[in-house]
Amino acid sequence: MNIYPELLETLIEYFKKLPGIGERTAERYALALINLNKEDLKDFASAIDKIDTTFKKCEECGHLTEKKICQICEDTNRDHNLICVVEDYKSIFVFEKTKKFGGIYHVLGGLISPIDGINPDDLNISKLIQRCKALDNVEVIIALRPTIEGDTTTLYLKKVLANQNIKVTRLSYGIPMGAEIDYLDILTLERALFDRKEVE
Amino acid sequence: MNIYPELLETLIEYFKKLPGIGERTAERYALALINLNKEDLKDFASAIDKIDTTFKKCEECGHLTEKKICQICEDTNRDHNLICVVEDYKSIFVFEKTKKFGGIYHVLGGLISPIDGINPDDLNISKLIQRCKALDNVEVIIALRPTIEGDTTTLYLKKVLANQNIKVTRLSYGIPMGAEIDYLDILTLERALFDRKEVE
Repeated sequence: MNIYPELLETLIEYFKKLPGIGERTAERYALALINLNKEDLKDFASAIDKIDTTFKKCEECGHLTEKKICQICEDTNRDHNLICVVEDYKSIFVFEKTKKFGGIYHVLGGLISPIDGINPDDLNISKLIQRCKALDNVEVIIALRPTIEGDTTTLYLKKVLANQNIKVTRLSYGIPMGAEIDYLDILTLERALFDRKEVE
Repeated sequence: MNIYPELLETLIEYFKKLPGIGERTAERYALALINLNKEDLKDFASAIDKIDTTFKKCEECGHLTEKKICQICEDTNRDHNLICVVEDYKSIFVFEKTKKFGGIYHVLGGLISPIDGINPDDLNISKLIQRCKALDNVEVIIALRPTIEGDTTTLYLKKVLANQNIKVTRLSYGIPMGAEIDYLDILTLERALFDRKEVE
């Protein structure tokens, strides 16, 4: 005999599919969910139901959008000669929260990783080159994870784009804000030393 | 301009209605949700949509059920002369997980709290008396929170049920398993002292 009614079990199973949610938390969320009012339940269910048909990839940059072209690519107030290359669209949301980036984006959809069988052709790279070619004086900022795969992809992009006379930059590596130098991992410290800047 | 597409904002808002979910976590869950496959999304949405029409209160004990009478009340292998009184049905799930309770339950649907305007008449008490009257040699175990409201409700039930010659017990209060005596709060220690048992 199950402790929970069947529908409650079903809800718990779905919550467990989300990241970092274990049995206990899933139970808590499912029990809280059934206390929501009728309208909220209807609207929540309908929102989830619409996900599959609503979201598309922006045809320009690959960002998550509800239209053919995303809001960012459509925004003429942004600098279309400054393209920030990211691994996936979640990075875009974080950049946008800083409110400090006025350029546009390009989503690769992954990183080069020969071990996992991911080659440059599997990524959204040819579209990036095509976009750059259509512009003058473009700068591509590469904003990928500082891992082997990220670095490999950065170097590959640098090579391919430099051939087209495109300025290629990357994010600086270094000490995260508020960190204690004493407890910093060695790799980060090494990178911070290497990327050091003159005090102005 | 919103950072997130509209549907994503909607999903985030609904996740934030669940307990302990703030902006960041809601964003994380919403983004993870849109990566689920089509079938999971359909089924999850339909499960949420069914909550409102599926769940009822058991007509006997007030527990959450999909039928008229819950599985526990229907189970003839359980001891129907042993009734555990709980504040709400969530407590039942925890008791059931212990697998140590072979009786049945009764859900009060709240605690007596004059400050909040909750009187005995607002709780599922008359049904409890009615159930007890229909039985011989019944024991009622009161399993309510050790707070002013819980204690008030326990004493009230004791009074009402003792009039009917019903045996009334309560859970023991004391040191939780694994606790360090040194760090125990004073009230718990007081209760543990008061509820002390002879070593056998």
